Amino acid sequence: MESFKSKYAEAGVDIDAKTGVIKNIANIVRSSHGPEVLSGVGPFSGLFELKGYENPVLVSSTDSVGTKVKLAVSLDKHDTIGIDIVNHCVNDIFTCGSKPLFFLDYIGISKVVPETLESILKGLTIACWEVGCALIGGEIAEMPDVYSNKDYDLAGFIIGVVNKNKIIDGRSITVGDTLIGLPSSGLHTNGYTLARKIFGDSRDKLDIYYPELGRTLGEELLEPHRCYYNQVKPVLPLLKGIAHITGGGLIDNVPRILPERVTAQFYQRKWDVPHIFHLIEQKGHVTIDEMYRVFNMGIGMVLVCSPDNASEIEKTLQEAYIIGEILEQSGKERVIIQHK
Amino acid sequence: MESFKSKYAEAGVDIDAKTGVIKNIANIVRSSHGPEVLSGVGPFSGLFELKGYENPVLVSSTDSVGTKVKLAVSLDKHDTIGIDIVNHCVNDIFTCGSKPLFFLDYIGISKVVPETLESILKGLTIACWEVGCALIGGEIAEMPDVYSNKDYDLAGFIIGVVNKNKIIDGRSITVGDTLIGLPSSGLHTNGYTLARKIFGDSRDKLDIYYPELGRTLGEELLEPHRCYYNQVKPVLPLLKGIAHITGGGLIDNVPRILPERVTAQFYQRKWDVPHIFHLIEQKGHVTIDEMYRVFNMGIGMVLVCSPDNASEIEKTLQEAYIIGEILEQSGKERVIIQHK
Repeated sequence: MESFKSKYAEAGVDIDAKTGVIKNIANIVRSSHGPEVLSGVGPFSGLFELKGYENPVLVSSTDSVGTKVKLAVSLDKHDTIGIDIVNHCVNDIFTCGSKPLFFLDYIGISKVVPETLESILKGLTIACWEVGCALIGGEIAEMPDVYSNKDYDLAGFIIGVVNKNKIIDGRSITVGDTLIGLPSSGLHTNGYTLARKIFGDSRDKLDIYYPELGRTLGEELLEPHRCYYNQVKPVLPLLKGIAHITGGGLIDNVPRILPERVTAQFYQRKWDVPHIFHLIEQKGHVTIDEMYRVFNMGIGMVLVCSPDNASEIEKTLQEAYIIGEILEQSGKERVIIQHK
Repeated sequence: MESFKSKYAEAGVDIDAKTGVIKNIANIVRSSHGPEVLSGVGPFSGLFELKGYENPVLVSSTDSVGTKVKLAVSLDKHDTIGIDIVNHCVNDIFTCGSKPLFFLDYIGISKVVPETLESILKGLTIACWEVGCALIGGEIAEMPDVYSNKDYDLAGFIIGVVNKNKIIDGRSITVGDTLIGLPSSGLHTNGYTLARKIFGDSRDKLDIYYPELGRTLGEELLEPHRCYYNQVKPVLPLLKGIAHITGGGLIDNVPRILPERVTAQFYQRKWDVPHIFHLIEQKGHVTIDEMYRVFNMGIGMVLVCSPDNASEIEKTLQEAYIIGEILEQSGKERVIIQHK
């Protein structure tokens, strides 16, 4: 009955379209599955066999890409937004030394557009594949009255594991320790509501070429959140603390791993703040203090180590800079950024 | 500087309001934590120590409450929507026999309204507490340009565990097995887009009292998704398969646990279809076939067991009815519902 249109479809929810997308993508998604993923069982859930950990601690996190999705929608380019959310989540959980095991995504969308969903899911799979993480499940919720036009929201959920005696938690951080910064690829997934307010997010604004960026604004702002797991993994045993620089910037994120009575002092001259942040600062008349509270300002991850290990880590990681040190806390600030 | 209003706040994202909510709710959330939750470590993630499983298989699921959130917003009643999502997720993962361990929520919202978020989070905590599941993490994303007015979206992620040799997966289901139904409390979390289209979702429509429901439409439709875990747990060793009846109804969900060459035959006379479904059918002129594909029609969970165990299960579970049996497959249908 080709002319049959169900009441449910009339109301804006097309179960068949959704099922079609899931079938199309199934093989790609499955390429991220190792033998730990028990397939063919547990149809209402994803099953993952946990082996080889003496005293396993499960490490979990959830996050979204924020209003970066609005840019993907404006540019109708959806192949990197999945990379963003996976990388954000992987970075979050390996701050305590854990290995990513599996990932689930949630997509709330106004209407199932197969091409859009397939692009998002491909991005998710590629990023999972990069770090040996299984894309084990997900939900696509078609909600025509919550999301308008082509809008959607994308959230991710990750599970990793670490042996209890290998947890990195910042407790041993002490005065004199070294702060190592890893460069971000841009805004990552934070500060987009402000950036969009300053630049606008219509297609014509995003297509403007900025010579100082060497590309269009849209290309710059859609640059995926960088994942640091593969790079940092070899030096995990040398680290005392790891901070992922997300919303709140260095100011809010670094204190989350500091023990009491120490302050993290950063020397801004030690790294280059990417042009996009200068553009935002100037065009939006944002104070430098707020810039450092909203944006990562070029540092995506901060590693804390004993000064004895700093040069080995710097060498191993290549793109890493020593950008500060741990001092005794003298005032209220837990983080000081020296701008000269 | 009380008069200070940051650029980020002007752009519609208020970091301080969000931090305030999280602080207010922290003690309530923490009440769901047992000693397995390692607090004070892993600030970018939730840590859960896994003990006492010889061959642990992690079981995960993600879901949303769909457009049931629209009703919560219309009625400005947010204390049950968190219960909905937790119960939905718990039911999903215990279909393979697993025990829920921990839960994470994702809330995308136009603007942080502390009372709304606190109500949602209290609902989440209560439902987690009921099944001994830790509410270990979550994300609140303030996205003024994705969600309009007071709209929000709510997704949940759950992790459970089951020993590998205790997985319930439907493989042993065979001709002659008994189908046991557990009553739903209403629509649970599925079919709301259609129901809202039929009834409307403005406050005045939801406040109409329906004598056949014995309450207002809004009260009926906001009734929380029922959780079956505590009830079914004692008989898990007697079960061959468990199907959670969500979107797709009996028609789509039961086949997910059936092995090849069998059909599930249900006798509709064996249970009462709640009045809300008759109302939807009549008012919306929805065919009976579509009703059974979109709604649970009064059955929230289907258990499959050997006929030898059926009466013991029926007795233990009290509110359980034998509603059908497994037959040899003769036609194309995997599920047959006999309406007389």
